[in-house]
Amino acid sequence: MSNLPRKAVVNFDSLHRVFTIPEEQDSTLGRIEREISENLEGFLQSHIVAIEKDLSDVEKDFAEATIPQQPIFVSQQADFLLDKLVAHSVHTASPSFVGHMTSALPYFMLPLSKIMIALNQNLVKTETSKSFTPLERQVTGMLHRLVYQGDDSFYKKYLHDQHFALGAFCSGGTVANITALWVARNNMFKVTDQFAGVHQEGLAAGLVHHGYRGAAVLISERGHYSLKKTADILGLGAKNIISIATDDHNRISIAALKDECEALRRDNIKIMAIVGVAGTTETGSVDPLDQMADIAAEYECHFHVDGAWGAPTLFSKKYAPLLKGIERADSVTIDAHKQLYIPMGAGLVVFKDPSALHSVEHHANYIIRKGSKDLGSRTLEGSRPGMAMLVHSGLRILGQQGYELLIDEGINKTQQFAGMIKQHSDFELCSEPTLNILTYRYCPSWLTPHLTNGDSKLVEKINNVLNGYTKYLQKVQRGRGKAFVSRTQLTPACYGQQSIVVFRVVLANPLTTIDILDEILVEQAQLALEPEAQHYINSLRALVQ
Amino acid sequence: MSNLPRKAVVNFDSLHRVFTIPEEQDSTLGRIEREISENLEGFLQSHIVAIEKDLSDVEKDFAEATIPQQPIFVSQQADFLLDKLVAHSVHTASPSFVGHMTSALPYFMLPLSKIMIALNQNLVKTETSKSFTPLERQVTGMLHRLVYQGDDSFYKKYLHDQHFALGAFCSGGTVANITALWVARNNMFKVTDQFAGVHQEGLAAGLVHHGYRGAAVLISERGHYSLKKTADILGLGAKNIISIATDDHNRISIAALKDECEALRRDNIKIMAIVGVAGTTETGSVDPLDQMADIAAEYECHFHVDGAWGAPTLFSKKYAPLLKGIERADSVTIDAHKQLYIPMGAGLVVFKDPSALHSVEHHANYIIRKGSKDLGSRTLEGSRPGMAMLVHSGLRILGQQGYELLIDEGINKTQQFAGMIKQHSDFELCSEPTLNILTYRYCPSWLTPHLTNGDSKLVEKINNVLNGYTKYLQKVQRGRGKAFVSRTQLTPACYGQQSIVVFRVVLANPLTTIDILDEILVEQAQLALEPEAQHYINSLRALVQ
Repeated sequence: MSNLPRKAVVNFDSLHRVFTIPEEQDSTLGRIEREISENLEGFLQSHIVAIEKDLSDVEKDFAEATIPQQPIFVSQQADFLLDKLVAHSVHTASPSFVGHMTSALPYFMLPLSKIMIALNQNLVKTETSKSFTPLERQVTGMLHRLVYQGDDSFYKKYLHDQHFALGAFCSGGTVANITALWVARNNMFKVTDQFAGVHQEGLAAGLVHHGYRGAAVLISERGHYSLKKTADILGLGAKNIISIATDDHNRISIAALKDECEALRRDNIKIMAIVGVAGTTETGSVDPLDQMADIAAEYECHFHVDGAWGAPTLFSKKYAPLLKGIERADSVTIDAHKQLYIPMGAGLVVFKDPSALHSVEHHANYIIRKGSKDLGSRTLEGSRPGMAMLVHSGLRILGQQGYELLIDEGINKTQQFAGMIKQHSDFELCSEPTLNILTYRYCPSWLTPHLTNGDSKLVEKINNVLNGYTKYLQKVQRGRGKAFVSRTQLTPACYGQQSIVVFRVVLANPLTTIDILDEILVEQAQLALEPEAQHYINSLRALVQ
Repeated sequence: MSNLPRKAVVNFDSLHRVFTIPEEQDSTLGRIEREISENLEGFLQSHIVAIEKDLSDVEKDFAEATIPQQPIFVSQQADFLLDKLVAHSVHTASPSFVGHMTSALPYFMLPLSKIMIALNQNLVKTETSKSFTPLERQVTGMLHRLVYQGDDSFYKKYLHDQHFALGAFCSGGTVANITALWVARNNMFKVTDQFAGVHQEGLAAGLVHHGYRGAAVLISERGHYSLKKTADILGLGAKNIISIATDDHNRISIAALKDECEALRRDNIKIMAIVGVAGTTETGSVDPLDQMADIAAEYECHFHVDGAWGAPTLFSKKYAPLLKGIERADSVTIDAHKQLYIPMGAGLVVFKDPSALHSVEHHANYIIRKGSKDLGSRTLEGSRPGMAMLVHSGLRILGQQGYELLIDEGINKTQQFAGMIKQHSDFELCSEPTLNILTYRYCPSWLTPHLTNGDSKLVEKINNVLNGYTKYLQKVQRGRGKAFVSRTQLTPACYGQQSIVVFRVVLANPLTTIDILDEILVEQAQLALEPEAQHYINSLRALVQ
């Protein structure tokens, strides 16, 4: 045995060593750690391959379905990960990766994450998390206050009183949205003398007891797909998430919302919740929250705001007014791994009413006993890591000022980029930015008059070709590895609700500069004229000749 | 400005620095990181205060509900975290912390976690995770194979075919259980010509369409509380999780299960799923899975196995037979942050049928498009971190052999500990271990004859006092900070189903030695005789005089 390098697990002694003897400084892992600590951007740039490799090729390195009998060395695995995994992962922190809601992170998040992982707390109960419990409650309270602006006495009373909760921490926005509507559903079908509550009796019994033909949730057609998933999970059925048309700015149409509410009332379908979006995923639009709050009040239903993306806009004195009415929401989803700049896996939902979460309480004998301070009694998840520590650190180290700078900078930059697109004769801005997300497409200048003045049949045909062109350009640019924008489909009124494929850009990374954005346009314009793209141009020319 | 230390965020330049300039080696965070890398156990021992501080005192350090306007320095936050958070967190990796399902972790998990956080991938879609997608599918396939033992051709076909999925990765066992029953529910109320499926139409419509009065899930009374939560969330109602009595070994009673199934059939309640437990949270018991599979087949319902704790027992040639029948389950939950020794926040559910997850698919325009390889189309969560990388590394670096050693060692040690308890005249073993969990209580030798031979009224009174005594001892031992066992309540047949408070010990940490377990018993016996405990002894003496 003595000839075997010390990290291969072959007997209990070597196993024991894996648990007790640290990786050496000059081991492969030790070197990687140092590189990451000293120069993260350098590490990512030098180890992630820029040119795209086909996913089916990457799969070949992950094709073995058997767990190896024999252990391998840590160094072997480290080399494998560097060559096969890291190399073909995505440089989500890159300033030119502007297609999704990712960003570079503040450097301090790295060592803090290490502390979090080393402590390996489990937030489901105080016995495995202790101080992390009040920390998480504090963070939840801070974000509650950001939204609801309660006074000192309110937070003094509720911040640490285990009989109440200002919100629920979770792994991300989807679980936050599920939690919000779970609470809405359970509070709607309340306990009465004849009914033990929907949490006990189930949804079918709840509908019967209350004499409703059904229950529905209303949200704009730009709402996040997680809401449909939520309706599926909660037993409502995805068709009972009712999609409401949007106006020219991708905001929910208040008239359409009112009409739908009336129609549902006539049909004896209970409106369980109205969901406003503060920062739609596709266009960054913000619904008219204040007017939605009025309607929710009129129909006595839960008003949820999905602020997974946009809620941190509240840090900005300049832009917070865009979210007016959010403080009237019964619940608000906030993703910490988005615009709070926390590593992946942290979100939460705050509730205006500190009793709201009572309707989803669960208890057990061994943990989360009644009256305990265990956070797990009111979360969808059970065991959870101490991510709240990173949110706590972000809020204190960046402060309201730091987040305000980030928000303002992002929105200002997006407005500048929108201006650049409008000025460029070969691009069309497809959604005016409200926050820091916009959409656009390549549209050669000689086409513009035909799109503006052509008959609807011609416009439709042009758009069909442009859709393919946009998809093509997005993929080719991604493959070249210099920059990444994403794509989605919108149905703008100016094209009679025809489905239009657009580039989508999200500007949350403070390291993204105007120069980088300019280069993205330059590259797209070049790609559009490459021989491989010629057939799109030919098709378009043929249409307008 | 130049006089300000460089890490306080006061303008865009200083903000920029936070994102681009690493923490210095000799900064507070730099020092902490080094300490953790070089000597984790030393770091935890020297920074976590052993003596318990009252939670309400700890709360005082987390009482501020306002996000500070002004940023603070990274070093200030680091000092705060060390003094206030880390100091009063829980040493979950301690070999004498045997009360919950925590353990020391293999050292290599620390640097690997750092790589994971540095890469900050989002597994919801390939565009933000690329190589992590096939990696996660591989890990899921490996654990699928551990359970179902498919042949090479099966995995060759399904491992990377995006039209199928061998499981769903998630943040932990609760989400895994929800996912399993979500799939079971949606597959039960399938799409027909007249019915668009429960995912579309909702549960109430599904029951009506299929002519059922209700739907139920059956699980032993030792089942995890997350199942009740699952039934609540899915709209079934917690009362439709039917608790089945257990036998003397805390396994589900097959006779009682059959009776209940028959009763439900007579009542026209559809059995949606039968859930077997492989490693109950309280006693580590394993249900007779093979017999349960027969019953599930008879009633044509989904058979789910909650193996959050016990599934890795399959690594052990010696103990895998305890789980016989698990390979017949339609779905199996496995927690990676438990007996796969991964940091908090990783679990998964595997499905026998690679098409099972079709019933919970969701799509959107901007991501998880139809036909894409995006993992997010079939997970409950949306954005998710790349924890699969750590599972991949654990499986390869420890190998089947390493995990087998860990499992065998834990179970053997638990059997030894059970022997020690039985030999000690002042302790009573309350559940014989099957896996690596057992329960016991302090019960002075002079009481034993009265418990064995006393009339039922007396026994009940004795147990009532012992319940308080056990609770007291558990709390005091926890407070002294040398060791931690947890407690729960069981209803053993020998005491006529009276609720009995017991100590609960989980032996998964390979660093826990027999000596440590001996010290735990010695300390408990000492605490039991301290003056503060005298009144329990007096009450017991009074009862049997």
